[in-house]
Order: sequence, then structure tokens, then C-alpha cells
Amino acid sequence: MKESDPHGPAMNEEIIKSSGNPRVKKIRKLMKSSAERNSAGLFPVEGIRMAREIPAELIQELYFSESAVREGLPAELADIYGAAGAAPVILSDDIFRSISDTKTPQGVLALVRKVPYTFEDVIRSARPVIVVECLQDPGNMGTILRSLEAAGGGGLICDAACTDIYSLKTIRATMGTLFRVPHITVEDLAGTVRDLKRNGYRIYAAHLSGEDYSTAVCYEEKSAFLIGNEGRGLTDETAALADQLIKIPMEGSVESLNAAVAASLLLYEVKRQLR
Amino acid sequence: MKESDPHGPAMNEEIIKSSGNPRVKKIRKLMKSSAERNSAGLFPVEGIRMAREIPAELIQELYFSESAVREGLPAELADIYGAAGAAPVILSDDIFRSISDTKTPQGVLALVRKVPYTFEDVIRSARPVIVVECLQDPGNMGTILRSLEAAGGGGLICDAACTDIYSLKTIRATMGTLFRVPHITVEDLAGTVRDLKRNGYRIYAAHLSGEDYSTAVCYEEKSAFLIGNEGRGLTDETAALADQLIKIPMEGSVESLNAAVAASLLLYEVKRQLR
Repeated sequence: MKESDPHGPAMNEEIIKSSGNPRVKKIRKLMKSSAERNSAGLFPVEGIRMAREIPAELIQELYFSESAVREGLPAELADIYGAAGAAPVILSDDIFRSISDTKTPQGVLALVRKVPYTFEDVIRSARPVIVVECLQDPGNMGTILRSLEAAGGGGLICDAACTDIYSLKTIRATMGTLFRVPHITVEDLAGTVRDLKRNGYRIYAAHLSGEDYSTAVCYEEKSAFLIGNEGRGLTDETAALADQLIKIPMEGSVESLNAAVAASLLLYEVKRQLR
Repeated sequence: MKESDPHGPAMNEEIIKSSGNPRVKKIRKLMKSSAERNSAGLFPVEGIRMAREIPAELIQELYFSESAVREGLPAELADIYGAAGAAPVILSDDIFRSISDTKTPQGVLALVRKVPYTFEDVIRSARPVIVVECLQDPGNMGTILRSLEAAGGGGLICDAACTDIYSLKTIRATMGTLFRVPHITVEDLAGTVRDLKRNGYRIYAAHLSGEDYSTAVCYEEKSAFLIGNEGRGLTDETAALADQLIKIPMEGSVESLNAAVAASLLLYEVKRQLR
């Protein structure tokens, strides 16, 4: 790697000012549509803090706003990604604002290649796995990935009805753990749960008619937890795949816990028991 | 209570169609501004599910959209609140959409009186209390209230820099627990923490340099947990008020847990130890 230039990183000379520019149109599509992200195998990541979490080899394109460059903020980022072969492209502040997902954009956006994780990646560490069915809230999805890393989980399996892991809201909520915790989306959830069983995992379903998650169960590392939709919980078909139904006890008249809270309590209970 | 009319509940005859109507202007202000909500002592609650959670005596005004009335959805609600003296007012669908916080409004909105909880309400049960400093995310705030009820906590104390508990996003995330868990906002957080101590509470601060929350501490019911801002954690001044710094152990390179997840893990650990 060459020494960093004291006057800042090399940039593309031209400043993009037109919303009709093909790069701008491409970013806009990737921001909005999970179908576009799927077919391109690319997703946008915004903000300085998140950009620092991206492994350099995954950066495909890097964009700064004009004022971000003027204020010198992203020079450190450009050094890193310049080394990875992605010279930053500069957008006018107006264009950057128009594509940004935030009210006060920091002027840093990257297009990032998806890591093609496999089922084997999720089970490789033989550690607890979270399986979510029809999870709809991007904040919950991101928070589950974050708790998975913190609690030492093996990975996340989503069915195709879940909110997109690669939406900007989910990515923000992951706090960078997206780049470190294996995660897959599967068409056949039942088949995948059976694959977990074949690989020695015991399957637990978070369910209102389950047994106490903490006193009624002795967990092994190879535990998989089925978590359902925020409003409706698991479908009966999916709950029926479990070896055991479990429940986190609740006082008062609250009907359920937040889905990400429930997943985190389960993961930390496994961690506590195996300590 | 009189028997419900088979043709549906009594409604105000007039349908409000003008965005200049004083009621519409009042709702709009209460939707947008926490200052308006504070000075009126009122907050709007939207949606059928949430409306069902509101204690009837707290309803000040009740609004339905024209099509919600036509489809007969909120009749059950009107029965309940009619008994409480709040005859529903009907808004045209256009007006309802224009004030709604959601993309597909259900056509039910109530203006609700705030419960004037006090510090004494929060500590009355002598059970665990969560104290949040500068918590910014409405989803986190609501999720903490929800977990407080589920884990049997005593209440929530917020400093004035926190996101408003009475915003629509927070209210939705509470899943109705807002109406059951005592919560107060205080100007002098340090003074309030000292009041907790004077009342026999032991104060724990969630802090990166703390001891293991689960192995290093024996909790009593009278435990209060200080939780800081999502990005920066607690200020040094607030952390210094604690009797003990505690930490939820984390693997990988994740820097922190989601604030609502952290609060929930702490509450459930107290519950587990005291079982």
C-alpha cells in the first residue's frame, strides 16, 4: 500500500451534478428496491461509522458528497478503499441529499458486494442459530444480528417473507455485525430446519404455550431458535417443526416481548448455561 | 351502560372535511410536537389495536375515518368510549390520511390524557427501575417500557434529553404497556438517582468497564439500572452516580448491545436471580 498523500486521497475529477447520471440512477434503484439489490448482488451503505465497518474487499463503489470532501472527513476512508481499488466518486451536495436515506447525510455512501453465505457458514461454528419467520421490522432484524455476534451465535436464517437484511434501516441497526455474522435467506424454511436437525441441532420455538426458557431447558451449543412475526408469532406449521416449545415468562398483561429482545434473551440464556 | 345499538354506536352527525377545522389543526399539532403534547397534557394514539389498550377514563376525544365507520370496524371501540362520554367524531378519509402517521391508516385515532405519574408511583412496588439518559430512539424507548411490564419492573425514569415517550412511534413500540407501567421525565437526573438511593435502591450503571452483570452481582428487587444514549452510552457524571458499574459480556468485535436489549437482559437477570 502506498503512503497516504498529505493533501488527501486521489479522487475522480468530475463532480456528478445530474440526477440523470447513470451512477445516480443505479444508486437510487439499489436504495429503494430489494429486488434490485438481489439481482445486482450489491447493497448501499451510508454514513461514516457504518462505512468503517465494511471489509475493503467488498467495496465496489465509493461516493462522497462535495462538502464531505471539502471538510476532509472521509479521507481516511478513501485511503482504505483506494487501496482496494475503488477510487471515490464525488456527488454534488444536492444529488447526495436526493439519494440519501437520512435527513442530515454525512456524505459517505458505498456500494457493497453481498457475501454469498451458505447454510454451511451458518452452522460451521456449531453455535446457536436464530431462525426468523416473516420478521417485518428492519430494526428488529438488525438488532438480532447484533445480538448474535455479541452472544457468540453462529448465524441467522430468514425465510423469504422477512424484511430485507440489506435495506438501509436493517444495515444501520446491525451496527456493522452484518459483515461478520453469517446470514442466509431461504425459500424452504421447513427443509432448512430439517437440515439443522440432521446436523445435530435441537430446535426450540418461541411460543406462548411453551415451557419456561430458562428453568425447563438445558441448552447445548447446537440450539436453533424459531422466532415468528412481530404481530402473529410463528405459524403453526413452523412451530410444529420444533423439538420443544419454549416461552419467556411475562408478568402483567403484556402479550409478547419485542422479537429482537426475545431472541437476545434466548441467546444469552444459552451463553449463561454453557459458561 | 346501555345496550349497544345493533345499527352501531351514536356518532356525531357532521363529517369533518376541512383541513382548516380547529379539531384537525389541534390533532395535527399534537401529532407533531412534544411541546404541544406537554402543554395540553394530551397525546394522540392511532390504530385499532392500540386504541383497545387505552383505559376508557383517559380518552378525551375519539376520531374515526368515514370508511372505518362504513366498514363497521370501530363500533366496539365506540361502545367502550361512548360509555366514557367521548362520542366519536368522523373525519373524511382524505383528512384522516392527512393527519395519520401511517401509510395505510386504520381510521381510528384517540386524544388521550396523560397519566400524571410521580416518582412515588415508580418506586411504589419496590421493584427494578430503569433510568435512561438521552435515549434517542422511539423504538428503544417503547421496547423498554414493554420489557419493564413483562419482567415485572417498577417503572421508567427518563431525563429531559430523551425522545418523547408520547410520540406515536414510541407509543406503538410500547404495545399498550404505556398505560400500565409508571414512567416519569425529570429535569434533575442526578437528584432523582440520589432519591432512589435514599429509598433503598442500589444503582447499577451499564458501562463498558463494568463487571459481569450476571456473575459479579447479586440483585435485590430494589435495583435501578442506568442506561445511556445509543451512540455514546452514559455520561461520566451519570455513571459516577452508580454504586456499581456492570457490563453484559460481548463476543466478536461488536461494541455494544442495542439499548432496549441491554435493559431487557438486565431486568430478566434480576427476575432470574430472585426466582
